[in-house]
Parts: sequence; structure tokens; C-alpha cells
Amino acid sequence: MTDKHGVWLVAPQKIPFNTPLMLQNGQQLPRFDLMIETYGTLNADKSNAVLICHALSGNHHVAGRHAAGDKYPGWWDNMVGPGKPIDTDRFFVVGLNNLGGCHGSTGPLSINPESGEDYGADFPVVTVKDWVKSQAMLADYLGITQWAAVVGGSLGGMQALQWAIDYPERVRHALVIASSPKLSTQNIAFNDVARQAILTDPDFHGGHYARHHTLPKRGLKIARMMGHITYLAEDGLGKKFGRELHSDGFQYGYDVEFEVESYLRYQGDKFAGQFDANTYLLMTKALDYFDPAAEYGNNLQAALAHTRAGFFVASFSSDWRFSPERSHELVKALIAAQKPVQYIEVESHHGHDAFLMEDAPYTRAVRAYMHNVYQERQA
Amino acid sequence: MTDKHGVWLVAPQKIPFNTPLMLQNGQQLPRFDLMIETYGTLNADKSNAVLICHALSGNHHVAGRHAAGDKYPGWWDNMVGPGKPIDTDRFFVVGLNNLGGCHGSTGPLSINPESGEDYGADFPVVTVKDWVKSQAMLADYLGITQWAAVVGGSLGGMQALQWAIDYPERVRHALVIASSPKLSTQNIAFNDVARQAILTDPDFHGGHYARHHTLPKRGLKIARMMGHITYLAEDGLGKKFGRELHSDGFQYGYDVEFEVESYLRYQGDKFAGQFDANTYLLMTKALDYFDPAAEYGNNLQAALAHTRAGFFVASFSSDWRFSPERSHELVKALIAAQKPVQYIEVESHHGHDAFLMEDAPYTRAVRAYMHNVYQERQA
Repeated sequence: MTDKHGVWLVAPQKIPFNTPLMLQNGQQLPRFDLMIETYGTLNADKSNAVLICHALSGNHHVAGRHAAGDKYPGWWDNMVGPGKPIDTDRFFVVGLNNLGGCHGSTGPLSINPESGEDYGADFPVVTVKDWVKSQAMLADYLGITQWAAVVGGSLGGMQALQWAIDYPERVRHALVIASSPKLSTQNIAFNDVARQAILTDPDFHGGHYARHHTLPKRGLKIARMMGHITYLAEDGLGKKFGRELHSDGFQYGYDVEFEVESYLRYQGDKFAGQFDANTYLLMTKALDYFDPAAEYGNNLQAALAHTRAGFFVASFSSDWRFSPERSHELVKALIAAQKPVQYIEVESHHGHDAFLMEDAPYTRAVRAYMHNVYQERQA
Repeated sequence: MTDKHGVWLVAPQKIPFNTPLMLQNGQQLPRFDLMIETYGTLNADKSNAVLICHALSGNHHVAGRHAAGDKYPGWWDNMVGPGKPIDTDRFFVVGLNNLGGCHGSTGPLSINPESGEDYGADFPVVTVKDWVKSQAMLADYLGITQWAAVVGGSLGGMQALQWAIDYPERVRHALVIASSPKLSTQNIAFNDVARQAILTDPDFHGGHYARHHTLPKRGLKIARMMGHITYLAEDGLGKKFGRELHSDGFQYGYDVEFEVESYLRYQGDKFAGQFDANTYLLMTKALDYFDPAAEYGNNLQAALAHTRAGFFVASFSSDWRFSPERSHELVKALIAAQKPVQYIEVESHHGHDAFLMEDAPYTRAVRAYMHNVYQERQA
């Protein structure tokens, strides 16, 4: 819907699921809600549905604005919308906040029906597989038998890949962007430092900070600052900030001195004020655990053997968090498994974050791929 | 000295300097001590002295053992000693703990003569230039007019470079290993996250934790864990730990899960128990500030124009903290300035830490260079 000023307005909705969900860790979630947002119209044969999966700090608000005065639109507004590469004039696009999230879906901030108190640290550690399972329940609820495409960047791309593996008949295309078939040791190591920063914050209180009326903001800030460095290219960071000073001359102290410090601390403080620490912890664990090949004798080709989706894989030259080599692994395994795959390696100095940025060759590639998804008939 | 079991025993000594030292930040240090260790014998014309400069967490104990039962020798024992590449049968080798350190030299743990209390956070932020100045006073004290060589890795290499620039007549050779003519933006960014982890630790108390009978161990642990990741190659870390689990199966919790987590947390805890947080902070600042070209209109070639030393520069292929490209910058500027330079790029999967490791081609290169230093006559 567009308001009288031409602003594209969208609204979230909360979908209740009152059936239990068995999780990979053996625990059962008695019930849960998923906060979603949809854009465009589902066609009569329900063949034009696209699922957008979010990354570590994303949510259901993918595109558009909730109110005309909103400063920022949804997190992938440059990719999703009327006339955009993922065109909501053609597709019925679904964004959701994952289970365990902190933007309205059931997670650590929700009330545990068994205790009557907030879950906090008692919320189970969920996995990419669990998310995909809950997203399949969402598809059922929406009457979608098969997604035209499941799309995601980074941790979102892992969900798209898991979808293609776990529900081969339900995914026509999987777009796996700036992602990886599993984390490297270095990725896990950075995640653990982030977690230790949060877990050792005296305001964390074993994850029950809400009951202590505190927030582990220090830990979350450190985690985010460090994470942020890994999202940006070394080169891009250098071009943007160099060794520029925040004020004149050296201070010989520990206040903000270089511009890059000012930027990172600002990002850290902002994030710590609006994101839930327990959610951050479990999202990083979902990343660590993701390894679909493990179920198939550590053979990625075997894991992909039964997929029926067409694959679009994209990586970014300066991404050192999930480098192009990680996408190559996936592409090679897809080729070995004789699956249809289109791969683009985008020249960029935006590092891992490039998948969220406007970039002509990247945008054109997604647009072209989605155009063909739209043209083809339902399998 | 070798004991009856053939163990090479060495002993530190504290050298007092009772003249004031004017620092780069404008403050004056009324007096200071330097903790040093020397190996070998100074020859009659005092032409065989070699200075070893330490990196972030190093100290004066470069080689040998203080007692026969010591589990570990000094930090560069594979490089320095009788018959080693930096041969103490030929050279008189001096190691010191830098000003601001926490191993016996005057630093945050020392008593401030003006207040009668420990310096703590009041210890001035010193720079590489300040260190070199204090090391020149040490050379005077030892009667050394000119070093045969000044040698260092990482932050130690920066001191070797600064020596060659600030005291051209006093340095015959500078060995600059796994170092950089200045930090990159990413380097500074990582340093700032480390500092924020320490500064925001509630036990830091503005740097006066000693007076509160606490230690900011949490912050120092996080800083060290993160630092450690940047010292190791991604590839090497992967080869060493992969995705190996510490115990059977996933725990779905936040205790140690992957082997790499166990390793990093152990390293972090060990370091936090034995290193001073204020020293860590000021060492990272010295790194950030180092930029000898800045005094010469940001022209590194101009900064090097008046040097009279021969240079040995070494880098390691998998070092992403101070990548080979950073050494190339230095080598290119030296060549442009028509200075003698020998450069070796060592294939290694040990990352930045490779400069501390035993590696045949690297060791051979240092040995050969130092052999020639020994053979030549004093300039």
C-alpha cells in the first residue's frame, strides 16, 4: 500500500502456532508466535511466494515503512519492493523474525508458558534446521506448498540452503548470498569471543538480566564492535576512515581518538541499546552449528544430492567473513551433484556487508535471476 | 652461564635512571628503571652489541632460563643464545622490558614518586619514539655508542625502524620482522575493541583497580582472546582445530563446545592472570600512534632518507595482522631511498605469530644476515 505521499507502507502481523515444535536439541517448544511481514499478493495457484530469511541481527521488516515518518525502511528495501529486483508486483514476499529473535517472534524476551516468567536464558538454543522447520509451518499456515524462491544473505543464506536440503519439493529456487556451507574455525573463534564478552558481563546474570532490571550492554557493545570489523573489508575500512583523527592531534589517552573508533563505538552503543543479548548468543550458536554436510558423512555433495531447487550463489570479493572460497565450495559441490547453479562473484570493497548494499552488477544479477523465476512455470 | 646440567642460566637486572625523561606527550618522567637481561660479552671496542625489542606482551627475558627448573625459556630462545642465529658467543645481546611494561621496568605498577602511590592509570601513554629514547639512555649506560643491530618482531620491529630513523649513527643494522610502517585502520579498530573491553570492565575502576583490590580480568581476557585470533592464520587455526568438538556431540549451551573455544579461553584466562591491564592499554596505543612517516609529510621514503643502517625485513605469508604487503611498503620506500635492504617473505601457516616460531628458512635467513653483521667491521 502506498500512502498519499507515495510512501510504501507495510504492517507486521503475529502468527500464532499452537502446536508443539520439537527442536534439534531434544526440547519441545509448547507453542510459538512468528512475527511476519508480507508484500505483494499471493496468486491463485500460490506459485509466486518468496521467503526472505534474515541474518544475525535482521528481522521480519524487510522492506517498506511502517509509518510515513520512519527514517529508515526495512533492512533489504533496495532489493525487495514494487519494481525492485525481488519485485513485489510479481511475487508474494514473506519476511519473518526467526524463532529466538527479539522482534516479536517467540524468543528469550517472551513469556515461558510453563513458568509464567520470561524465558531469558531458558529459551532453547535453536538451529538453522529448527528455523527452517518453523518456517515450513509458516508456509503451511499461509497455504504455500512450494516457495518460488527462498532467499537469504549470510546466516539467511544458510537457511535457504537448509530449505533446499530438508524440503526438496517445497523450494523451486534457493538464493544463497554471501554465505557458507559451514563456519570456519576462525568464524567460530570470533563468535566465542563475542559470547564471552556477553556471558562475562556482570549485568548478564546468567541470562536472566531482565529479572535483575539490567542489560548486559557492555558485553553486547564489545561483541558488536568486533563483529562489525569482520563485516567490513579491510580495504573498505581503510578507504572510509584511514588514520583520520576525531579531533586535532593525539590525545594520549583512551577517549575516542581515531575516526574509526568513534564509528565503531557508536555502532556498538546503538546495537547494545536495541538488541537482546540472549538472542545474540543463540544466533551465533545457530551459525556455529550449521553444517548440513555433517548429516551426510561430511559430504556436501551427498547433502545436496536430493535437492530439486535451482541455485543462485553470490559472493563478494572483499568479504573475509564468508570469503568467495566458501561459496566456491558450495558451487563445486552443486556442480558435482549435477544441480543447476548460477554463480556471481561481485567486485566490492564493502566486505561481508556488501550483500545488503546497492551495487549495480549484484542487483542486476538478482533481478535477472528472479525474472526467470517469474517466467518459468511451477514445477 | 651454563649450570652443571647444561642449562643456560641467565639473570635480569634493574638499571636505574635518575635523570628526567621528556615524553612525546609533553609529560616528564622524573626517573625510571629499566629491567634488562644481557647475554654474551661486550667486546673491547663495544662493536658487537645487539638490542632485542619486544612486542606487545614481551619483556626483557629473551632467552635462557632463570632457574634450572623453569618450564619455559625466554620468549625468543630459539633465535637468541649460544650458537643460535643471534649468536651470544659472538654478540653481546641486550633484552629489556619497555617503559610502561609490567615486568619490572617503570610502569603502571610502579610507585609514582610524586604521589607515593602506584601510577595505575596515571602512568603516561608512551610511544615507540619514547621507548627508543629510553633505550638510547640504556645504550649510554652500557657504554654502547652504536648497536651492531637492533632487532624486533611486530611492535618490536617498529622500534628497530624508529631507532634507524631517530639515531642513524647509532644503528648499523635494523632487523624489522613481521612489522609495519604503521597500523591499518582495521588494526586500530581491533585495538580499540580490546581497549573498550578493558575500559568498560567494572573492575577496571578508571585504571586504579589496584587501589580497589580488583583486576579487570574479564576485559583483559576478551582482549587477549580476540588478539589471539588476529595473531593466528585462518588456515593454521583451521588445520589445528577445524570444527573439532571438546566433548561428544553438541551441548546446545554456552560452555566450551568446540576445541578452538577451549584453546582461546585458556589463553585468555592465562594472560588475564599475569599481565597488567594498564600496560596492555598503553602498548596498544603505542602501536596506534606509530607512524614515522607522519613527521616527514607522510612520506616514508623521506623518513628513511637519513638512515644509515642496513635493513633486514621479513614477513610471513599467512600473517593478516601485518601482512606481507605492509613489509612491501617499507621495502619499496627503502629501495626508493637507495638504502641497503634484504627482504624475505616466508611461507608459513602460523600467521603473525610465525615470527616467534622455529622455521628453517626464516631461521637460516636471520642466521646468515647476523653472520654478515658479525663479519663486517664497525662502520
